[in-house]
Amino acid sequence: MTGTAPAPFTTDDYRARMARAAREAADAGLAGLLVAPGPDLVWLTGYTPPAATERLTLLVLAPGRDPVLVVPTLEAPDAAKATGAPALTLRDWTDGRDPYAVTAGLLDTDGRFGVSDNAWAMHLLGLQRALPGTSYASLTEALPMLRAVKDAAELELMAAAGAAADRAFEEIRKVPFAGRREREVGADLAGLLRRFGHSQVDFTIVASGPNGANPHHEVGDRVIERGDMVVLDFGGLKDGYGSDTSRTVHVGEPTDEERRVHDLVRAAQEAGFRAVRPGVACQEVDRAARAVIADAGYGEYFVHRTGHGIGVTTHEPPYMIEGEEQPLVPGMCFSVEPGVYLPGRFGVRIEDIVTVTEDGGRRLNDTTRELVTVD
Amino acid sequence: MTGTAPAPFTTDDYRARMARAAREAADAGLAGLLVAPGPDLVWLTGYTPPAATERLTLLVLAPGRDPVLVVPTLEAPDAAKATGAPALTLRDWTDGRDPYAVTAGLLDTDGRFGVSDNAWAMHLLGLQRALPGTSYASLTEALPMLRAVKDAAELELMAAAGAAADRAFEEIRKVPFAGRREREVGADLAGLLRRFGHSQVDFTIVASGPNGANPHHEVGDRVIERGDMVVLDFGGLKDGYGSDTSRTVHVGEPTDEERRVHDLVRAAQEAGFRAVRPGVACQEVDRAARAVIADAGYGEYFVHRTGHGIGVTTHEPPYMIEGEEQPLVPGMCFSVEPGVYLPGRFGVRIEDIVTVTEDGGRRLNDTTRELVTVD
Repeated sequence: MTGTAPAPFTTDDYRARMARAAREAADAGLAGLLVAPGPDLVWLTGYTPPAATERLTLLVLAPGRDPVLVVPTLEAPDAAKATGAPALTLRDWTDGRDPYAVTAGLLDTDGRFGVSDNAWAMHLLGLQRALPGTSYASLTEALPMLRAVKDAAELELMAAAGAAADRAFEEIRKVPFAGRREREVGADLAGLLRRFGHSQVDFTIVASGPNGANPHHEVGDRVIERGDMVVLDFGGLKDGYGSDTSRTVHVGEPTDEERRVHDLVRAAQEAGFRAVRPGVACQEVDRAARAVIADAGYGEYFVHRTGHGIGVTTHEPPYMIEGEEQPLVPGMCFSVEPGVYLPGRFGVRIEDIVTVTEDGGRRLNDTTRELVTVD
Repeated sequence: MTGTAPAPFTTDDYRARMARAAREAADAGLAGLLVAPGPDLVWLTGYTPPAATERLTLLVLAPGRDPVLVVPTLEAPDAAKATGAPALTLRDWTDGRDPYAVTAGLLDTDGRFGVSDNAWAMHLLGLQRALPGTSYASLTEALPMLRAVKDAAELELMAAAGAAADRAFEEIRKVPFAGRREREVGADLAGLLRRFGHSQVDFTIVASGPNGANPHHEVGDRVIERGDMVVLDFGGLKDGYGSDTSRTVHVGEPTDEERRVHDLVRAAQEAGFRAVRPGVACQEVDRAARAVIADAGYGEYFVHRTGHGIGVTTHEPPYMIEGEEQPLVPGMCFSVEPGVYLPGRFGVRIEDIVTVTEDGGRRLNDTTRELVTVD
């Protein structure tokens, strides 16, 4: 878990990402970026500290200067092993010194900086106190698309994560559903994701019968019955990149209404997918999927946005939601996951990860979108 | 992982903790406390959100007012199930609304607030923008001892976690060391901690031979050899409370020098333990242990503080370190873990968790502190 990067990236990859981030910061009128341990740091440098602690670790990217990683002395040997380390300077600080003073020496005293969303408040407060003339904006606000466009090596990892999730679906179709608790099927799914190479399982939603009508349901103690629709939505990280797919299955033969709603969601998912191409605003993907469901009279039962970005986390910008005017760019990856939720009865959701290509979109999940029956 | 509290706490326990925290905030001149998901929130309410995300969840504790938990609407049903929920008011906000405006309505517009160390910077920035007249201090700075004093039920859990770690040590003594990699023995330790009830393993240090001289070494690929000293330092969370213990073992018969250094560290650990009683400053525990090592001429080889607090995390205030004048209070729990590190050769560390009683200290680890030989 420490110090090492996902396999295929080189020091030059990280150098290029840091340079691009600094350029984008300058374009956004920022004096620099302050990057905390977590997805931003691993994406920019390949480095994950042993643990997120009260000890400050912070990457400072300023346009026109070399990247500097401020790091506790005890952790510096570990940081030096990161693939991105040769592309930056390590500035270590020992217990007893003030890490904010060390960092402040690297910053314009009256600049505005983008800071990782998940940086600790105590560290931000330390910087604000050390440099009262500075101001800050969260990275999601200042540079929401920083990690959104994936390069070729990243896309390979995204595709591999999607394929692994698809293999998990092919196996879960074969297990018994009726008479088992959602929690047990969820545990099966987690085991399958790990078996097919996931190092981290982020969610395994098994929402049966009426539970399927709550898009936020994860797993519970409900015993799945013959006749249930079951929403399956699962994913996590494989080699540092995310998977996330949903299929809705039926235990035994579905009713005509169940088939009809499933067909509707499938058509909406197809419409959302077909809306994907460079230059189109994110909200157009949402609108395309939503229109299909609204036209069929089910608009009020599609209660969430159509999709979210995915990469080194399973949930990040860009969002496919009304009001998001960000144009799609080749290399972006996000979910297209419309659903219909009939309170007290059942739900249907179908979800693929889609990446933007030069002239459209490409799905990174490819199990059948027909209604599958299970036992 | 969601919504449920460690077994033995009642709504009244959480009510009492929230009331005490609000009182301590007032005593410290604060207008309130802003508590983010993580150890502070679970300790005050028993609630852990499904995931730490960009969606704001924040407990607002203000002296003289009822506690309010600001929570995303989708997560409110889950939050309502937390044991502490009946002792607070849920204030939910839906996607599209501004959660900082919702929170700002609960706060004095010119107050100073304590905020969880690990609150996300983006949330702090949102509050600072919504209420420009407010100011903030991290909880570790403003109320470092907030969670430091454990009540009777917490002490039972701490003792149980310690006993489980001790059982892991009794088993690891029996496994083969010579000829195996540190990493393999570390995996054994992790398995044992889980077998004896840990839900989370935070660290399993296996530092053999010269690696033992680096107090920050975790595990590596070094093959352990006959004649090695091996520092074992391991712990994690069991039922929500932490364990952390170190023993140094020897593969085969030790030399006279190895025995002498081990005896020295054992005497230092005993001296640190004996210094523990109510009213004594934390730094006195450090001084007592350090004096033994310094008097023997090894002072320069004891390169870290003597101890750290432990509770719902395995690493928190109070710290047993020179300069920490905080007096010990019955119910505090912390490590006493002096060590000697001889560069390029070997290290020795002996560590117990100690809790402060009415008239001294009580160890929560009790495996032998004699030098154990392994195979």
